[in-house]
Amino acid sequence: MDQESNSLMKVDPVRTIEWMGNSVRLIDQRLLPRQEKYITCPDHLSVARAIKGMAIRGAPAIGVAAAFGVALAALKGRKRSKDLFLQDVEEACQILSRTRPTAVNLFWALDRMKRIMQQNRDQSVESIILSLVDEARRIYEEDIEINRKIGEKGAELIRSGSNLLTHCNTGALATAGYYGTALGVIRTAFLQGKQIHVYVDETRPFLQGARLTAWELMREKIPMTLITDNMAGYFMSRGKIDAVLVGADRIACNGDTANKIGTYSLSVLARENGVPFYVVAPTSTIDPKIDSGEEIVIEERDHHEVVMINDRRIAPEGVQVANPAFDITPEGNISAIITEAGVFYPPFKEKIAELSLFQEGEEK
Amino acid sequence: MDQESNSLMKVDPVRTIEWMGNSVRLIDQRLLPRQEKYITCPDHLSVARAIKGMAIRGAPAIGVAAAFGVALAALKGRKRSKDLFLQDVEEACQILSRTRPTAVNLFWALDRMKRIMQQNRDQSVESIILSLVDEARRIYEEDIEINRKIGEKGAELIRSGSNLLTHCNTGALATAGYYGTALGVIRTAFLQGKQIHVYVDETRPFLQGARLTAWELMREKIPMTLITDNMAGYFMSRGKIDAVLVGADRIACNGDTANKIGTYSLSVLARENGVPFYVVAPTSTIDPKIDSGEEIVIEERDHHEVVMINDRRIAPEGVQVANPAFDITPEGNISAIITEAGVFYPPFKEKIAELSLFQEGEEK
Repeated sequence: MDQESNSLMKVDPVRTIEWMGNSVRLIDQRLLPRQEKYITCPDHLSVARAIKGMAIRGAPAIGVAAAFGVALAALKGRKRSKDLFLQDVEEACQILSRTRPTAVNLFWALDRMKRIMQQNRDQSVESIILSLVDEARRIYEEDIEINRKIGEKGAELIRSGSNLLTHCNTGALATAGYYGTALGVIRTAFLQGKQIHVYVDETRPFLQGARLTAWELMREKIPMTLITDNMAGYFMSRGKIDAVLVGADRIACNGDTANKIGTYSLSVLARENGVPFYVVAPTSTIDPKIDSGEEIVIEERDHHEVVMINDRRIAPEGVQVANPAFDITPEGNISAIITEAGVFYPPFKEKIAELSLFQEGEEK
Repeated sequence: MDQESNSLMKVDPVRTIEWMGNSVRLIDQRLLPRQEKYITCPDHLSVARAIKGMAIRGAPAIGVAAAFGVALAALKGRKRSKDLFLQDVEEACQILSRTRPTAVNLFWALDRMKRIMQQNRDQSVESIILSLVDEARRIYEEDIEINRKIGEKGAELIRSGSNLLTHCNTGALATAGYYGTALGVIRTAFLQGKQIHVYVDETRPFLQGARLTAWELMREKIPMTLITDNMAGYFMSRGKIDAVLVGADRIACNGDTANKIGTYSLSVLARENGVPFYVVAPTSTIDPKIDSGEEIVIEERDHHEVVMINDRRIAPEGVQVANPAFDITPEGNISAIITEAGVFYPPFKEKIAELSLFQEGEEK
């Protein structure tokens, strides 16, 4: 961690998820902002439940959680024969991969864990465990460092005096902790002393903006105004928004971006009103296997998320509901993609291709 | 009322507001869909409270309510001297006009009541009272008849097999009862036997879609799916929406339309996706005094509407909130304006001008 920028934070950084040696501790994001309660997950099954139930959410955060889940499965298999041990870990990867379909970081993190297992297949069980725990901790630490870098690169695009709009939660809570992606850029700009004000979309149905982003910004005294999702266009049309910053759950090779439902609409409204629209994500969010957004699976979540708020019903009993959790923003609506490897401007395809080549080169 | 189309309704029509002789009875829309409870307003002050607190809402409905409020004030002044009586009624008009600023129907209805008072100024108090009660009842009956006509004219634009999107509540509850404006078109198309399906925006913050439109559609078994406001763009981008139908709180002479917050965004998304966007309203919603949407006052409502849902808080204590209740849809985003006087296509300015001239001519 970078001491200088940490020392700029006036409050304790948000600790979304932490490795506790033989368990994982995570803040229960379903209870925020009313309660700041931590869950201890002793095994991969409880991690899988936490991901599926959205106790932890945010593409980078669920990648880290899944990696820790695999590490926990490995630790539990310590006494097993090597064959059974390998089977257990593979099964844990399977279970964790079935929690949520859209964010690619989950599959990316599981792939890294599986690769480590493959590479160390000939070692002792004890040694494979050590390698897996190390890899999970590396994914965690890299995520924090990557987001610190993203924040620095992105903050260069933010002028003092700006009104920024953000959607969902892309803060420390959406990542391993400390910074965040889109909200990390906002946080960094603020810590650099820039005068900024943030419009926060409440982000129905799960209210990540009202509950989580507002909580993060308020505890760090970053000026903000909470709005309902359908107000964003109004403020853009009145010239009140200087830039939109959103995260990403999966970015296709052409730049098409899957992100929280409502992002597509914001991108159309931003283009209509001449407002820059930035997607902020680690390069691990880019899916080299997917050419365009059309191939991305959109998760349909439980209908209770729409009709129940705080355990109380807001619509008639028996009402038919749709709940797609994500949508696709076409690359043409994106002004720039901000990553730890730099800020990419359109056309994105070539830059993303160069990046993938570079990563393959690194591996060899 | 038209017997034929009423007989088509399989359930009792919604009775939003009714004149009870010396009081006004209205369904408390804040409690729907959980409770179907009626409020009795004995005087203009309780009517003003019901409008301000949104026990009754919807541009045509608050026009009717305000007219009944004036009639109640007149009835209460029966025993006063004529001077004091006239003063009381004028004061009631003042109080009722200060309840909500955006919907023009409120001012239009109050102007009609004031005109009747002027015209009958030389009559006895008893006779003025009779004229005022008559005029309020006429406004109520005309509203039902106008909305029946709007429904018929609008339904011609709806093909069988259509998926329609609507925002807020523009149903019987938003008007004197029975039909509604945009939802009246949908209802009529359904009663004509057309196969339709309605996507209903929940419409934050007050949830008129989730609470009221869903309630109206479900009691009449009109197929519908409830979505959050930020999902509308997603369904449009997937080709799932064949037309958007919304109401209006005020229409400027050039066609710019003030309507529930979020309408502007829907209009941009509809244009982007080649989806027809229809504004549905009685001609009383057109404000002949206003050239364009820029001149329309946007009501800023209480911030509790955003942070409290069903009496439970959804955001941190002390959070800063914005709550503009309406936005302006520029005329260029509107495919047609559906009124009782016909369906107007762009450019709207000339057609609206002709209409205003016609109304003035009628008065002479």
